[in-house]
Amino acid sequence: MQALRQRIEKEGQNLGGGILKVDGFINHQVDARLMDACGAEFAERFKDLGATKILTAEISGIAPAVMTAKHLGLPVVYARKSKPITMPDQVFLTLAPSHTKGRMVELIVSPEYLAGGEKVLIIDDFLASGATTLGLVRLAQTAGAEVVGIGALIEKIFEGGRAAMEALGIPVVTLVAISNMEDGKIEFAANA
Amino acid sequence: MQALRQRIEKEGQNLGGGILKVDGFINHQVDARLMDACGAEFAERFKDLGATKILTAEISGIAPAVMTAKHLGLPVVYARKSKPITMPDQVFLTLAPSHTKGRMVELIVSPEYLAGGEKVLIIDDFLASGATTLGLVRLAQTAGAEVVGIGALIEKIFEGGRAAMEALGIPVVTLVAISNMEDGKIEFAANA
Repeated sequence: MQALRQRIEKEGQNLGGGILKVDGFINHQVDARLMDACGAEFAERFKDLGATKILTAEISGIAPAVMTAKHLGLPVVYARKSKPITMPDQVFLTLAPSHTKGRMVELIVSPEYLAGGEKVLIIDDFLASGATTLGLVRLAQTAGAEVVGIGALIEKIFEGGRAAMEALGIPVVTLVAISNMEDGKIEFAANA
Repeated sequence: MQALRQRIEKEGQNLGGGILKVDGFINHQVDARLMDACGAEFAERFKDLGATKILTAEISGIAPAVMTAKHLGLPVVYARKSKPITMPDQVFLTLAPSHTKGRMVELIVSPEYLAGGEKVLIIDDFLASGATTLGLVRLAQTAGAEVVGIGALIEKIFEGGRAAMEALGIPVVTLVAISNMEDGKIEFAANA
């Protein structure tokens, strides 16, 4: 998606170690109208999958997921990283490594909001190694739901996450793909 | 706001101890179109304040804040509760008690995205005792910014947060006000 790519070219920072800083428009400060446009694009690309619910992970996935949900008219559930007191004792929980925290984090969804038979569309900010996304896939499958699609704003192709998703037979859409971040570069690839 | 009030009447749960569970449409599962409508309402009510930025706290404030930001065409910054590795070492940080966690949490904003001279509109899910909101006000003031308005989806009038805001001379808008949650009740008040 051209608008997102241009924003990364202008403001994205390569911090080394494969970390792309996009805190000025996605991860700390959010450009809500850009996220709305990204949500519209995901909605268009995924509109024929029959999704009944969108699933994301707090925190950075919320803005693009909520915008996609608005365009598709679907509810969105965000997996929590700690269990609030409003959640029942019996939950769906899985562990996934966090890129920016350097440790495992919990992903928790209440069975109240993820049920068997649902067709789940996963939307997140990044697709890197795919570890968080696979955690969301496990949560959905544990609930007896089917994952019908996976969308991410930015794919870091060199971390290889896409292969794991496609091995599961799940279609993957990313809006911007980055092929190389060595030596301070941010090189873009043609989008899949 | 009628649509939000009706949803609380239908699905909100009084868990006791002043805890209103709205996990089915705000705090875990999000009704994106309802949040969009709430954002439109905030945008209408605050459109003449000259706000240059919206500030909220992760996690539950993000959906209504991003929708308000979309309608007003403003960037939104969400205060982080832990410092990601993409954030500089020097940050604005304050402490606020968390209602649902039973302990103090940090609210952290990078100086990159909150500057002197900004006119800040605070949007959050709940206005209860006002402790989190006052934390956001402190962050903004530490940055040299001015808080021009405060909006919350749901006000728990009996926790008294509004008085603290109005003592600072900041206009407060809440979309639904709840006056009493004793004995399992959820009683609504006329909106301020």
